[in-house]
Amino acid sequence: MAKPLLDKLAIFGVGLIGGSLALALREAGAVGEVVGVGRSVENLNAALEMGAIDRIALGAADAVLNADLVLLAMPVGQMGAVMANIAPHLQDGTVVTDAGSTKQDVVALAQQYLPNHLQWFVPGHPIAGAEHSGVKAARADLYRDRNVVLAPLAENTPAALETVDTAWRACGANVSRMTAGNHDSVFAAVSHLPHLLAFALVGDIAAKPNAGELFHHAASGFRDFTRIASGPPEMWTEIGLENRHEIGRALETLIGELGKLRTALENEDRIELRAMLKRAKHFRDELKFRT
Amino acid sequence: MAKPLLDKLAIFGVGLIGGSLALALREAGAVGEVVGVGRSVENLNAALEMGAIDRIALGAADAVLNADLVLLAMPVGQMGAVMANIAPHLQDGTVVTDAGSTKQDVVALAQQYLPNHLQWFVPGHPIAGAEHSGVKAARADLYRDRNVVLAPLAENTPAALETVDTAWRACGANVSRMTAGNHDSVFAAVSHLPHLLAFALVGDIAAKPNAGELFHHAASGFRDFTRIASGPPEMWTEIGLENRHEIGRALETLIGELGKLRTALENEDRIELRAMLKRAKHFRDELKFRT
Repeated sequence: MAKPLLDKLAIFGVGLIGGSLALALREAGAVGEVVGVGRSVENLNAALEMGAIDRIALGAADAVLNADLVLLAMPVGQMGAVMANIAPHLQDGTVVTDAGSTKQDVVALAQQYLPNHLQWFVPGHPIAGAEHSGVKAARADLYRDRNVVLAPLAENTPAALETVDTAWRACGANVSRMTAGNHDSVFAAVSHLPHLLAFALVGDIAAKPNAGELFHHAASGFRDFTRIASGPPEMWTEIGLENRHEIGRALETLIGELGKLRTALENEDRIELRAMLKRAKHFRDELKFRT
Repeated sequence: MAKPLLDKLAIFGVGLIGGSLALALREAGAVGEVVGVGRSVENLNAALEMGAIDRIALGAADAVLNADLVLLAMPVGQMGAVMANIAPHLQDGTVVTDAGSTKQDVVALAQQYLPNHLQWFVPGHPIAGAEHSGVKAARADLYRDRNVVLAPLAENTPAALETVDTAWRACGANVSRMTAGNHDSVFAAVSHLPHLLAFALVGDIAAKPNAGELFHHAASGFRDFTRIASGPPEMWTEIGLENRHEIGRALETLIGELGKLRTALENEDRIELRAMLKRAKHFRDELKFRT
């Protein structure tokens, strides 16, 4: 039998993201043993039953011992504590990656808690739906044709980068690389701000005295526009706070654009308004979406 | 054979909206003759072939002669001219309604161009998808379980109201009534502003120097959030201008809400941010959408 890509994978936080990575690598024959660590025994037992993990690790030391790859798949807010836990047990060459939605703060955490392991810590972000969570929603094809962004550190070894890159590609993902700063700016614009905007729009309507009547008349356009306001508030609160600087900048320019819209409406400036809308439609129609 | 609800229906502007009304009434056995008037002969011929209309009217006088119901289904910007055209030919008792997306401006047009016919002019707004247009997109079930809002005038006779109400119900629609002012305020909040906001968000991103990279990383949330920015820019420009006062008010409170969001992010106010997002999610999850 050919040696798999990874003899041992350790997953901290076995939910939708971690569970799907395990299932996908298993399906690709790219992993030997998968061990899981997490705060919910019930969830870990579900992961065992689904075959996402082979066993529940006895602790951080047991989990990372001889692991080829360690995935940190908990919310970024809990990542520092996990890094501190595993730091004393990491062997040189054990590659660690994460799946956090923001990258500059994860880099800062790694510099603080894994200062002697930066050669082998490769920050990552798989772009996959977050409407569902928990390992029961995990699927082997979650990453097929999806984007995974790596934000390598200057310290990273080529071998460490290669390991993470190859693992995600084995799951069918398209892997690209950008700096942590650029990552946070890009996702502030196309993901974080749109989510917060949908929450703000729904919240704004909900606060009006005739909210019931307003929602009664909402149609399919409103439904699609606000679907992302059904995402988990805790997660989006944390992402918002973690990436607050970039989101703040994106929000600033959007408020500016809305000011232009208001002025065009006030001045009954048909030419300006039509140009704004046409430009947006042109770009929207050009978009090719995966899925 | 039972007498149909309407012996003769005249449709000015035989597109998605007018064509679907004709097909639906026909399927319900609720209409005798349907005549069509429009600017595009090609479109009228298509309506004939589809069986949406029985014949193309020779002109405004021929169209409204002995009609039980006249539907004005052109953009609001063209409605004044059509009202002026039909005014000299309308017989007392001939009920006229419209399908414009805004109502205060339509009422003003009726007061200007149909001052002697206000008893029988019932402003209306069927809430049905506007992604497609033209009679070829018309379907008999377009209005099934959809909302139609009537904004009756104080002058309306009970019989005129009853005619319009019954015709829409025969198409399977849920008919409700509100004042023209309330209509425009409600739809500014749940339709017009969300559409303009989606255009503004996409336009804002399109204007950035790294727009290509940004759109490359847009995922399914962004796709749904911005789908309505694919609507026809000309139509949304006109709706925006027609309802600019109400949209301006809704935009003002949304910009205020976005300011609160910015402040919560700047102050790292987790409690406030989470409360905003939770309230929005709660309302979004409660929403029941037709289709």
